Amino acid sequence: MNFIEDVIQSIIDKRSVVCMGLDPRLDKEGEIPQFLINELEDPNKIILEFNKTLIDNTFDLIPVIKPQIAFYEKYEALNALKNTIKYAHKKDLLVILDSKRNDIGSTSEAYAYSTFKVFNADACTLNAYLGIDGVKPFLEYKERGKFILVKTSNPSSKDFQNIFSANIPNIVESKTEIKVDKITLERNYIKMARLVYDWGNKLDQFSGFHNLGVVVGATFPEELNAVRKVIRNSFILLPGFGAQGATADDIRSGFNQNGLGGIVNSSRCIIYAYSKNKKYAPNKFGEAAREKIVEMNQEINKEINL
Amino acid sequence: MNFIEDVIQSIIDKRSVVCMGLDPRLDKEGEIPQFLINELEDPNKIILEFNKTLIDNTFDLIPVIKPQIAFYEKYEALNALKNTIKYAHKKDLLVILDSKRNDIGSTSEAYAYSTFKVFNADACTLNAYLGIDGVKPFLEYKERGKFILVKTSNPSSKDFQNIFSANIPNIVESKTEIKVDKITLERNYIKMARLVYDWGNKLDQFSGFHNLGVVVGATFPEELNAVRKVIRNSFILLPGFGAQGATADDIRSGFNQNGLGGIVNSSRCIIYAYSKNKKYAPNKFGEAAREKIVEMNQEINKEINL
Repeated sequence: MNFIEDVIQSIIDKRSVVCMGLDPRLDKEGEIPQFLINELEDPNKIILEFNKTLIDNTFDLIPVIKPQIAFYEKYEALNALKNTIKYAHKKDLLVILDSKRNDIGSTSEAYAYSTFKVFNADACTLNAYLGIDGVKPFLEYKERGKFILVKTSNPSSKDFQNIFSANIPNIVESKTEIKVDKITLERNYIKMARLVYDWGNKLDQFSGFHNLGVVVGATFPEELNAVRKVIRNSFILLPGFGAQGATADDIRSGFNQNGLGGIVNSSRCIIYAYSKNKKYAPNKFGEAAREKIVEMNQEINKEINL
Repeated sequence: MNFIEDVIQSIIDKRSVVCMGLDPRLDKEGEIPQFLINELEDPNKIILEFNKTLIDNTFDLIPVIKPQIAFYEKYEALNALKNTIKYAHKKDLLVILDSKRNDIGSTSEAYAYSTFKVFNADACTLNAYLGIDGVKPFLEYKERGKFILVKTSNPSSKDFQNIFSANIPNIVESKTEIKVDKITLERNYIKMARLVYDWGNKLDQFSGFHNLGVVVGATFPEELNAVRKVIRNSFILLPGFGAQGATADDIRSGFNQNGLGGIVNSSRCIIYAYSKNKKYAPNKFGEAAREKIVEMNQEINKEINL
């Protein structure tokens, strides 16, 4: 397998750039339906059954799913995660493990091993605050996808990511003073995008894209446009569609003229669609998810010319 | 419990600021001894036994341990992690879970739950690239410690953390131009330290410190000094001592006149000390760790006047 090659092929075959986020929650009404909780009791069984039903109902419509590992940790259901990934592979789905791991040296190696060998994810999300040391062990898995956080979808992403960073190309230092020439100020997320551009620069490409992608919140269309100008060869994972408020119109600049370049994630809006749609009883959550995806595919494909 | 209160008391009682990093590794010679691997086979059993022996041999000498979750994930030994934490608590040790989690909203809530409720860690490390949204759910656990990555110990921490950030306090915008007044340039890690200062500003303090700390690599003494000037009320977790090259002399500016303000972590140098010390056979790894800690305590306490 090669993630970027496979995901592009699957996007074309299925005519979809939608990613279903599998964020299982057991705490409130409108999340995993009560009948499953009562019937199966063990979180590992409940979550796996929930995920399998969602996959059965949607696998022909989407190229990829994105389980968020935090929820599997919370419910001590890492077995359900592992088995969900195995099941998704059987159903011709690619899997992005959303874990935002970050560390250095042998610790980062351990995370990469657990992501790609233990869980067998096809791709993952990464936080590169620690620099290339933390990313390298993941790059060793050449055929797997990596999405580095650049501009996240949440409101307070501005706290740090939007801080102005200075480019100072020419510093002349004398005994008495430092002269700086042509200072330009860019925000941190753009600097992060430039780092990713450098790190991905020599990687193998398929249809103009390589396996080192980025994450940019679909909630920030202007920032998306700015990031796309910095990095032409990275796929962009776009969270924040639906529940967080982004629309098809917001994501256009992530895609090229062939409708390629982005993966649009939605979690709650798809997997708990039954709770917002009176047509569907709780035990029809799979069908409700399918309807939601059909709708998303139509909406998005119109915008991006896929 | 209250992490900061308890850790300060324990530092004073045990006269130690040393943290033993529990990074279990099973792959090479010089890591977890072969006799344990042969005897116990199951990674959960091997790792728990290894950790318990280390704890038994050192608990009276140190206030805190720091398991790195990546290794427990790699070997599918999260049960060993849970049981290690339980055992450490019985032996009067505090536990910092090194996991560098980062996400937003309900996902961050799930991580906080798993850190503090599932694993029952007393404190954890966090990556705040996503801003306050990702930190807030952890702050809800008021009595637990949080250490936010500011300047990490690895060489490539400069890639992003040392990028210049601009402070532009006074922007005057007219129709034709933007005038900026008094631009100063600071590096990203200092900006991150300033964010932590703001976020921790109103938290309850004990002996002048609150539960929102930072991580600064002991490998960067000048940067440590600069961070300490920005944040007086944060405890600093200092990794990088020993194997990564930092010495007692490098960490002095993290501490106040009472020897408080920092926790010095060392992992490999302590837990695999047996492999570098001919005095100890592999089955005496606990004793070798103890000797190493006695040595570290002496070295460090002399520098920081504890």
